[in-house]
Amino acid sequence: MTMPIITLTTDFGLDDCYVGVMKGVILSRAPSAIIIDLTHSIAPQDILQAANLIHANFSYFPTGTMHVVVVDPGVGSDRKIILAEACGHRFLAPDNGVLSHFILKNQISRAFYADKEELYLTPTSHTFHGRDIFAPLTAFLANGNPLESIGPICTKEKLMALDLPTPKINSTQRTIEGMVMHIDRFGNLATNITLNELNTCNSPETISVTINGHRISGLQKNYRTTGKGLPLLLINSQNCLEIAVNQGNAQTLLNTSLYDTVLLST
Amino acid sequence: MTMPIITLTTDFGLDDCYVGVMKGVILSRAPSAIIIDLTHSIAPQDILQAANLIHANFSYFPTGTMHVVVVDPGVGSDRKIILAEACGHRFLAPDNGVLSHFILKNQISRAFYADKEELYLTPTSHTFHGRDIFAPLTAFLANGNPLESIGPICTKEKLMALDLPTPKINSTQRTIEGMVMHIDRFGNLATNITLNELNTCNSPETISVTINGHRISGLQKNYRTTGKGLPLLLINSQNCLEIAVNQGNAQTLLNTSLYDTVLLST
Amino acid sequence: MTMPIITLTTDFGLDDCYVGVMKGVILSRAPSAIIIDLTHSIAPQDILQAANLIHANFSYFPTGTMHVVVVDPGVGSDRKIILAEACGHRFLAPDNGVLSHFILKNQISRAFYADKEELYLTPTSHTFHGRDIFAPLTAFLANGNPLESIGPICTKEKLMALDLPTPKINSTQRTIEGMVMHIDRFGNLATNITLNELNTCNSPETISVTINGHRISGLQKNYRTTGKGLPLLLINSQNCLEIAVNQGNAQTLLNTSLYDTVLLST
Repeated sequence: MTMPIITLTTDFGLDDCYVGVMKGVILSRAPSAIIIDLTHSIAPQDILQAANLIHANFSYFPTGTMHVVVVDPGVGSDRKIILAEACGHRFLAPDNGVLSHFILKNQISRAFYADKEELYLTPTSHTFHGRDIFAPLTAFLANGNPLESIGPICTKEKLMALDLPTPKINSTQRTIEGMVMHIDRFGNLATNITLNELNTCNSPETISVTINGHRISGLQKNYRTTGKGLPLLLINSQNCLEIAVNQGNAQTLLNTSLYDTVLLST
Repeated sequence: MTMPIITLTTDFGLDDCYVGVMKGVILSRAPSAIIIDLTHSIAPQDILQAANLIHANFSYFPTGTMHVVVVDPGVGSDRKIILAEACGHRFLAPDNGVLSHFILKNQISRAFYADKEELYLTPTSHTFHGRDIFAPLTAFLANGNPLESIGPICTKEKLMALDLPTPKINSTQRTIEGMVMHIDRFGNLATNITLNELNTCNSPETISVTINGHRISGLQKNYRTTGKGLPLLLINSQNCLEIAVNQGNAQTLLNTSLYDTVLLST
Repeated sequence: MTMPIITLTTDFGLDDCYVGVMKGVILSRAPSAIIIDLTHSIAPQDILQAANLIHANFSYFPTGTMHVVVVDPGVGSDRKIILAEACGHRFLAPDNGVLSHFILKNQISRAFYADKEELYLTPTSHTFHGRDIFAPLTAFLANGNPLESIGPICTKEKLMALDLPTPKINSTQRTIEGMVMHIDRFGNLATNITLNELNTCNSPETISVTINGHRISGLQKNYRTTGKGLPLLLINSQNCLEIAVNQGNAQTLLNTSLYDTVLLST
């Protein structure tokens, strides 16, 4: 039996020992587990950001991968922990909305409440369930135990989903109002306007975008097709509209923050 | 033979190549080693912080794990490098106090000076013993060589220990004076007042803590049992008194620094 | 067959999911690959820094290691991707100068253009070739496919090399003018003046260095041989002249930036 791959997505950062300790607990119980960090830099307690990232990136891992998502402001309270199966992958996460995209797209095939305390580390702290619950459950499942052995089945309708921000299409004025959903290390601004929405425009190549009083026109293929230091629009690697700067930083140049409004007109 | 797990704890950060290169040297000599980063964000040359973190977290790894701790302001000087066995784990570290907790609790069963230069990388630099000494020794031990083959036995009494800050219990005034020993990414303030010390109080649930002119009362079970944005006290995942803020940042709210005084009264 | 080790060097940072996703794609196609992060903190699009780091550090990995270097401001444009064999190691990188040291030292034995689109992820984005091209090619080669199966051979003379900054030796005035090439987490200033150049001096032990109006004299063996907080000169772990401060930070103390001039006199 080969071990499934395990990914970790948290808001723990890498400065503290939290991530290392979770790996210690997993490897103590599943010594040949392969653990990959997706990111540990989710802004503290930002469930929406975690929800977006895990849904956008899970499919680049092999079918059967176990994705552990610990962005959990309700740790120690009565919020539930769920194990969900979706799109051939497994997700272990608090029931707080981090799996919203899967829920709203009706992609979850099965879900269970992870409530069997005999599978937890004891004593179980009230503040670090990543170590005391998520890690031992991950190892338990990596060792081949069936999903249903983790706890009672959970009605999909009961799973918690966020009210995800979606772009507003105005057909009369021929505009789409979206927002900046992610800013990466390069200062590239990823929006929530997808290729599908862009394709509702008559000629996507001739769009204009207004952001923070700046107007950018035309749709480029890559970062080098405008002059150096100039802003540009392109479709990014997740099929979303992105505002970038050739060899520069769009966040700085356009003085932008996360969740700023982006107005597209055609 | 299965390889032991190796953990790395350093003040190297992840921006430079130091950690990657250490792994390269280990894997060159022990190709199937499993290497886990505990943290590389120890403040530069902060031996006390490293001492606290390694003792608080080693036990979450399997028995037999090899913990390599390279926080080493004396690199290249005549400070010794030691291999110590404690609590069924192995520790390779400079003899500068990073293993203080194990020494002061008399947990070290055996220790050796790692002085066999034929086991080092040659030429051996004077500034990067992580690469040139710690990494090849780690691989040598991971390959199953006995501890005593690394150098002469070391009298435990000669190992260097720091003067660790301990809480001052004043039974007359019914106070405990401790300090902030760690601030994590969430701004949670971990103190050096442990559950053991708290249990010397008559009613631990009714304690008050004064820090930086702020007074916080009552002991909570988790982060959600006060109002959002309010400070609270709880026992953290390492059984220490912690000051936190429900969905907020205690470091910012209380304007706190590492090693600030915490006065507990009952 | 044992898998070769794979190292990753990028300017992606660790805050976004880019690195995790590259690993997902590699492991999807080569499940037992061992992937080591060399660094992901190359300054965005700083090809020179990546060129220096990969050449200085590759040799600490086993022969046969595959080094993937994705610092790629021309992503999606018509720049080529090359697979080069040098010094018994393999390098997959954009043809933009990141392999300059190998090229200029004539260390490349064979090179190929990685232009077989049937080996890429489809659809292939224009902005994230790390995921869509570098990762699947890395897995393809890790699985034992021969180098020449990746695309047509590339004449070594056509590979792009940067104009690397080299120290200027003035024999009449007995000076060497170099520059700060790297500043690490400790604030140590690594220069491009190597031990070879230092050995052209009559008595390397009595050199002086002027940087930013500060003058430092003498060559030390390690960081502890001057007073605490004082600046010093030594040969670092990569055989280059380094300016450091005993238990302090030379970058801060000497108010230095990357690429500042360093004037050595004898």
